[in-house]
Amino acid sequence: MTKSEILSFLDAQTILTVTTMNGEQPETRALINIRNKNIAPHLTHYFKKNDRIFFITNTQTDKIVQIRKNPKANVYAYDNNFSGLLLIGEIKEITDKDIIDILWDDSWKMYYPGGKDGGDFSLLEFIPKQFKNYNGNGFVKTSGAV
Amino acid sequence: MTKSEILSFLDAQTILTVTTMNGEQPETRALINIRNKNIAPHLTHYFKKNDRIFFITNTQTDKIVQIRKNPKANVYAYDNNFSGLLLIGEIKEITDKDIIDILWDDSWKMYYPGGKDGGDFSLLEFIPKQFKNYNGNGFVKTSGAV
Repeated sequence: MTKSEILSFLDAQTILTVTTMNGEQPETRALINIRNKNIAPHLTHYFKKNDRIFFITNTQTDKIVQIRKNPKANVYAYDNNFSGLLLIGEIKEITDKDIIDILWDDSWKMYYPGGKDGGDFSLLEFIPKQFKNYNGNGFVKTSGAV
Repeated sequence: MTKSEILSFLDAQTILTVTTMNGEQPETRALINIRNKNIAPHLTHYFKKNDRIFFITNTQTDKIVQIRKNPKANVYAYDNNFSGLLLIGEIKEITDKDIIDILWDDSWKMYYPGGKDGGDFSLLEFIPKQFKNYNGNGFVKTSGAV
């Protein structure tokens, strides 16, 4: 898959799973995909021209503790055609206020009552290094560098 | 969550993600949930009385290579109410022919043309040790031993 094909598949998903490491044990959870235009309509224009993969989360979560110790992570999504895309890489906290200002929307106060500066809002960026793709249409597997 | 509540949530899902370790990097993929009565109707009666969590897979897959080296794994599922259940534990191959005979259905030859003894069908069992639950109805988190 090209980077463009990877992003097309990703952008079509409202939910992605993100797996991080708790010591030697992997932990997985579903997160909303803010690259998806239904999840974050205010970012549609931004992500048309930007290939970065971001997640938002409460700061007081296990995942923040985990990625501060070990950035190894994966992002996985599958669709209704039973096609799946695994992205293998690293995830890190982004504290750059400029990018946080660009991405933030006040509707997110539902989940982060203190807002983007309230101490319980964190922005994460996932950096993919490799992909594994399973195409449910023909059971074809591909993999490679991102 | 009680074991019974955990199984109820699990059994309602047609797809589960299973994460295994490729060296230090977690890898995630979606697998069908044969505990679900729509996925494997022939096992409805069996799983009513049995709390074991099984997966079926082709033997010639990365996941088999991975679990032979490191059994640490998780099973994760989320539903349309954005509730998620993470089960942390270990996964292993089951070679006991009696249990394979009980679970096998000839309709699976679509995916395993050689059948249950053809060399490319593997049965896996996941043993949960801990759970983390996120209840989307009220944003309530619980965790504990399974």
